[in-house]
Amino acid sequence: MTMTAGELRELRADIEDFHSAYCAMLDEGHLDQWPDHFTEDAIYRVTSRENFDAGLPAGLVYAEGRTMLRDRAYAIGNTQMFAPRTVLHYVANVRVLGAEGGCVVARANYLLLQTLIEGPTTLHQAGCYHDVFVRRAGRLLLRERQCVYDTALVANDLVYPV
Amino acid sequence: MTMTAGELRELRADIEDFHSAYCAMLDEGHLDQWPDHFTEDAIYRVTSRENFDAGLPAGLVYAEGRTMLRDRAYAIGNTQMFAPRTVLHYVANVRVLGAEGGCVVARANYLLLQTLIEGPTTLHQAGCYHDVFVRRAGRLLLRERQCVYDTALVANDLVYPV
Amino acid sequence: MTMTAGELRELRADIEDFHSAYCAMLDEGHLDQWPDHFTEDAIYRVTSRENFDAGLPAGLVYAEGRTMLRDRAYAIGNTQMFAPRTVLHYVANVRVLGAEGGCVVARANYLLLQTLIEGPTTLHQAGCYHDVFVRRAGRLLLRERQCVYDTALVANDLVYPV
Repeated sequence: MTMTAGELRELRADIEDFHSAYCAMLDEGHLDQWPDHFTEDAIYRVTSRENFDAGLPAGLVYAEGRTMLRDRAYAIGNTQMFAPRTVLHYVANVRVLGAEGGCVVARANYLLLQTLIEGPTTLHQAGCYHDVFVRRAGRLLLRERQCVYDTALVANDLVYPV
Repeated sequence: MTMTAGELRELRADIEDFHSAYCAMLDEGHLDQWPDHFTEDAIYRVTSRENFDAGLPAGLVYAEGRTMLRDRAYAIGNTQMFAPRTVLHYVANVRVLGAEGGCVVARANYLLLQTLIEGPTTLHQAGCYHDVFVRRAGRLLLRERQCVYDTALVANDLVYPV
Repeated sequence: MTMTAGELRELRADIEDFHSAYCAMLDEGHLDQWPDHFTEDAIYRVTSRENFDAGLPAGLVYAEGRTMLRDRAYAIGNTQMFAPRTVLHYVANVRVLGAEGGCVVARANYLLLQTLIEGPTTLHQAGCYHDVFVRRAGRLLLRERQCVYDTALVANDLVYPV
């Protein structure tokens, strides 16, 4: 990585802005805009830390390509199984691990809170984003997002994106 | 918004500094300093996401003007109903939505943890700040803060500022 | 503090990078690298807000000097009492309080989540870092870290660093 300290700070700030916009989009329920944050050939995966550490391909959620993300977003938005709830995402500890060949490898810890209608707010999922970003027309896009969660007991109704 | 990328980064950093100082003030119990973070004619409101989305004016807490905030701060600090507790605020995902005519519109997710004496720490309120800032003598002040919370079951003893 | 606004922003960004790297090291279980984040004569303490406010020296954990931290890291990594768990640290609200004579006084709120194998993720400790940083060979190191926690019911198995 041959960036100056100042360039690195700017890159981290850009990634933080990406996370904030991405999370707001999900928190506000604009699921249809979710695939737009990924490249055409992106990989999106939600998996446990145990699986991740063991190098296992399996995961709770796996999608390859923006088309699969679009199908997924449509399904979530139109299924009766999706009980009314609101979500809030919190991102912290953003780290840039490397930037080479137009790709930026980054990590961040995330916290996903969920509130069912008439229920309390609960800690729904806590984990670490393993991201690979690329820039398209000046804008950051995810080429890969692996959401590696610690929470062992993930409700099987988890369809909502992280 | 006609700001450069660098100016926007600086503005976000300033807002983050505001949040950190504001939260520390509350976390450390300096309630008397709370109104000083608002303009003389500020609006402060705590309301549910449901109410907010429906455009309803009602809310858990509503205050108009720094004088009302002062009364409120005094009442909280001097009431016997206020059980001993400590609070911790966490702010994440700060977004600048616009800056025009001297006003800055911004959002951020907040998490309010509460610990009752001899009790565990609980997630007391999770939500999104809908803020309007202005600058007075170089310092950011809130002209409007709407704390839009997801948490449906807010204890009715919630008098402490968010 | 005779720093410019720009220098202060850079210093805060550096401290945020420190926190992110420090937390990732702990979250990923590289306990052997933990002492490297402190100066040779560092003080590390974990104590309740009640104790801290009362000026009491006692605390849940107290270590003086990098050697004690090394012993501690070794003990934690090699004890059978340490039930399998994963941790996630979240740092927010970083504040630089002062920078003089080569020392930087800073605060930040932290959230420590813990997941026992086959169990849910729980809020394990919430508190405020009271830090003193120094720079050695361009790198920030902790000369003092006091983790002042609100959580009253800390499990007595808390040996893992904060």
